[in-house]
Amino acid sequence: MKIPASVAMPLTVRVRRSPFWPRSHAAGGHNYISYNHTLIAADIDSPQHDYQHLKDAVQLWDVGCERQIELRGKDAARLVQLSTPRNVSSMRDDQCFYIPTVDGEGQMTNDPVLLRVAPDCYWVSIADSDQILFYKGVAAALKLDVAVTEADVAPLGIQGPRAEALVSRLWGDQIRELKFFRHTRVPVNGRQMIIAKSGYSTQGGYELYFEGSDGADALWDELMHLGADLDIKAGSPCQSERIESGLLSYLSDITPDMTPFEAGLGQFCYMESDLGCLGFAALQLKQQPVRQIRPIEISGESLPPLQSFWQVTDKEGHIVGRISSACRAWSYDVNAAIGLINDSHWNAGTNLTVQTPAGPREAVIKDRFWGR
Amino acid sequence: MKIPASVAMPLTVRVRRSPFWPRSHAAGGHNYISYNHTLIAADIDSPQHDYQHLKDAVQLWDVGCERQIELRGKDAARLVQLSTPRNVSSMRDDQCFYIPTVDGEGQMTNDPVLLRVAPDCYWVSIADSDQILFYKGVAAALKLDVAVTEADVAPLGIQGPRAEALVSRLWGDQIRELKFFRHTRVPVNGRQMIIAKSGYSTQGGYELYFEGSDGADALWDELMHLGADLDIKAGSPCQSERIESGLLSYLSDITPDMTPFEAGLGQFCYMESDLGCLGFAALQLKQQPVRQIRPIEISGESLPPLQSFWQVTDKEGHIVGRISSACRAWSYDVNAAIGLINDSHWNAGTNLTVQTPAGPREAVIKDRFWGR
Repeated sequence: MKIPASVAMPLTVRVRRSPFWPRSHAAGGHNYISYNHTLIAADIDSPQHDYQHLKDAVQLWDVGCERQIELRGKDAARLVQLSTPRNVSSMRDDQCFYIPTVDGEGQMTNDPVLLRVAPDCYWVSIADSDQILFYKGVAAALKLDVAVTEADVAPLGIQGPRAEALVSRLWGDQIRELKFFRHTRVPVNGRQMIIAKSGYSTQGGYELYFEGSDGADALWDELMHLGADLDIKAGSPCQSERIESGLLSYLSDITPDMTPFEAGLGQFCYMESDLGCLGFAALQLKQQPVRQIRPIEISGESLPPLQSFWQVTDKEGHIVGRISSACRAWSYDVNAAIGLINDSHWNAGTNLTVQTPAGPREAVIKDRFWGR
Repeated sequence: MKIPASVAMPLTVRVRRSPFWPRSHAAGGHNYISYNHTLIAADIDSPQHDYQHLKDAVQLWDVGCERQIELRGKDAARLVQLSTPRNVSSMRDDQCFYIPTVDGEGQMTNDPVLLRVAPDCYWVSIADSDQILFYKGVAAALKLDVAVTEADVAPLGIQGPRAEALVSRLWGDQIRELKFFRHTRVPVNGRQMIIAKSGYSTQGGYELYFEGSDGADALWDELMHLGADLDIKAGSPCQSERIESGLLSYLSDITPDMTPFEAGLGQFCYMESDLGCLGFAALQLKQQPVRQIRPIEISGESLPPLQSFWQVTDKEGHIVGRISSACRAWSYDVNAAIGLINDSHWNAGTNLTVQTPAGPREAVIKDRFWGR
């Protein structure tokens, strides 16, 4: 049967709304998904408009669905390390680390950003899975001295090339010194809140880890006022921009059966010695994947929406991979896609066929993502 | 701002569709939520029609969102027991157990139905959280001999007073012998699949644990054909029926900060001795809750949709609880609700006020749910 582009989702207590949702929704937020049991808008204006505006100006994103798992206690660092092959022992207090998290088989359970917010306190800023249950299970099983909770924090994305100009107007020029994937604290509502130079785009920007809910409207309005001459608008994570840039999405591109090596995240895996990661022994045996994430250009006009994985076939018609994300990358005038491709066909320049619902399309493996 | 009753949700690979989805959707399925990263319809016809029909006839429910966590290996039973205060040691091969699952603090992580499907193999039929990550964490931390996977199983609900007549036509009269919360195997597609006398209603019925996806349409059509004179229709878990019957919903009525005692599930907690449950020590200290689930009747006409918890106040205006589910219970001509109420006000007969978006309403604590 024909699958509709969208369906109606009733808003119940099962789907949380962040403190920034009323402003984001009033600005046009639509096409919502439930992500970490929380609403997130896929679009504000049209996809192409949101995309171009993100590249030109500055946007406020309600990304309250990025929940923070707080690990607090003397075993907090150990618990983090048990969950990831990345070496977190060298982490400094102001750093953010992208950490693939894995199970005992070395398969990915999430791909969060880790923040060290205080000695013995970490926030794990999660993608869309209940990673908190992994931490609760391990902490209880090993009787660790750590409290595992979900913090009352709703990140606000400030993304785009004019983000630095905007935040410096509110928090002063010293914020211009902040380096990529570092964080500091800024005054909001009489509190000191964490702001990181990070975000789910490659256009530059910040994520403010907004605590509680009081004052969210006022902060949003103040930023909109301060950024009026910067053409500030509401936005949301942009599929086309993140796909052309190779920013992966957990539960789309990365599935729970994949290792970090298959996801192309080998550089985040410290394999020289066993630091404690529960998946380390399994990962030692899986360092040479036989399938891996690749950038793929799909020929022709714009594509239909991707509602199931699309098969990738070779010239004999054998299945050699799948497409997990695809979009029009208007800046490059191509269809950009993310695929998981077998080693037999993953070399750049390999010509393949993608079986889309609109029929087969010619495609080619690229050597890198467009926006990198 | 006014919260819309529903929003558009795009159908992407992030929201899985069960093998029964095409038939259920074609039958009118609408108002979908994402539950265990899988679509489930809230309604087929109107809520009142679906409710009355469920009580009169028989319905097929696409409940493929009830995912099965398979625990297989010699430590499978131990891993189950680590996650729940219920004594599962006495479980027989054909039994289903409703098991509150808890973390190290005794707080609920899910409220699944446990099936013992073979020696050393259990299926944990989960509500809406990634409970698989708790099992993966514990299994890896304790180096248990158990494989933790999600089985390729999509349950089909067969619910309503005529369900027994229907299934006996397909699988023979011996299925009438099956007792409540017991399971057996029946031939489907040349395989033996598990069917249990269970389901998320109190109207009687079965859940078929359909394996794989081949033949789902044919099975649906066969049941529809066999049940034509029974007035069979597509349906889905019915909010009004489950609320009036006190069937709780995880992430609505039961939140991750609640113990089984607060949820009124003390009868499923074996507290005489420590069987291994990781939350046992914490639960020993929490056996006397100061708030607990209660049935509540709310006066007046039908209620607006519940989109946030509604405060429950006493006559001085102090907050003494929250309403987590509320609906029109047409059979009883009342507004039935589920609340979490402080011990000071939880006695049956206590008069309270519920702060609904349509204004305050008088309410009273009942001694039991209507459909019990």
